[in-house]
Amino acid sequence: MANVANPTPRGFTLWFTGLSGAGKSTLAQRVAHELRARGSPVEVLDGDEVRQNLSKGLGFSKEDRDTNIRRIGYVCHLLSRNGVVAIAAAISPYRAVRDEVRRMNGRFFEVYVCCPVAKLIERDVKGLYRKALAGQLSGFTGISDPYEEPANPELVLHTDRESEDESLARLLQALELGSYLNSGPPHR
Amino acid sequence: MANVANPTPRGFTLWFTGLSGAGKSTLAQRVAHELRARGSPVEVLDGDEVRQNLSKGLGFSKEDRDTNIRRIGYVCHLLSRNGVVAIAAAISPYRAVRDEVRRMNGRFFEVYVCCPVAKLIERDVKGLYRKALAGQLSGFTGISDPYEEPANPELVLHTDRESEDESLARLLQALELGSYLNSGPPHR
Repeated sequence: MANVANPTPRGFTLWFTGLSGAGKSTLAQRVAHELRARGSPVEVLDGDEVRQNLSKGLGFSKEDRDTNIRRIGYVCHLLSRNGVVAIAAAISPYRAVRDEVRRMNGRFFEVYVCCPVAKLIERDVKGLYRKALAGQLSGFTGISDPYEEPANPELVLHTDRESEDESLARLLQALELGSYLNSGPPHR
Repeated sequence: MANVANPTPRGFTLWFTGLSGAGKSTLAQRVAHELRARGSPVEVLDGDEVRQNLSKGLGFSKEDRDTNIRRIGYVCHLLSRNGVVAIAAAISPYRAVRDEVRRMNGRFFEVYVCCPVAKLIERDVKGLYRKALAGQLSGFTGISDPYEEPANPELVLHTDRESEDESLARLLQALELGSYLNSGPPHR
């Protein structure tokens, strides 16, 4: 029987955008873990894995990046309209195609994972920025390729000055306030 | 509260394979309608639509066909492991890649929609066989391109000698017997 006080949350698409190393994948995995604990079916579509499975052969030109993002957006649409929380974590640097994906998906929550390039160069966990700055990686977003910030994201997380725990707590609170989620136990 | 006598069916992948015009899409839509009426979330991945969204730029060489089928299989996997019944309707002419998709998906039910080419040429609803026979369509499965029949499909439907209703009823019965589905009201 339906429980009116606590209806089953419907699917939606949670879209993380931001520079390489800003924290998209980590936050995607952490929020996925939390939502699963609350009983939602959740699928994480991470940029690299998805490229392997849906976009082998595509490169990093604007056109190829847009095609890749459209495919991720289409799969999020299929999942979310069937009640799954589809979480995308991909740089998705171009605003127009992100907005196209937003229109394709019904319930769409865009999170801009924001961190200044200077900070990312300093951290450089994977050593990619060093290579990009040395000219060994071409078309690297934020260095030699553009990143267009979202104009009206549902949430901005500042991973240079918030801890991971703080970002996660802010995200869960925003999802609850926006009725994307039932409120869970206080997040610790 | 869980109803033990009638547990929520879990997701699975229902894969229709067969020649163009054999009846895959029609049966996919009809079984989808029936499963939705029984309360399952259902997504139909139809060959043509999926090509548009996931495989633009791919052609009909063996390699490109296989890539297209792998992508459909991957999306079915994502859907079905989240409780959705993922229904694929694509010619999928090569056995090896169908079996690869079977291994990738947990619960997999393959339906061979079988109709002799002579009969399909006779019907030729879309006029494609006429064009293929006239040499105006190259690489047309069943005429100028191979179709490898499934070695061990879960079900074979003979659409040259069964009515659509009969095929649908046999499919639903097989799904129930295989515990893919709860038994529903007698199908009329």
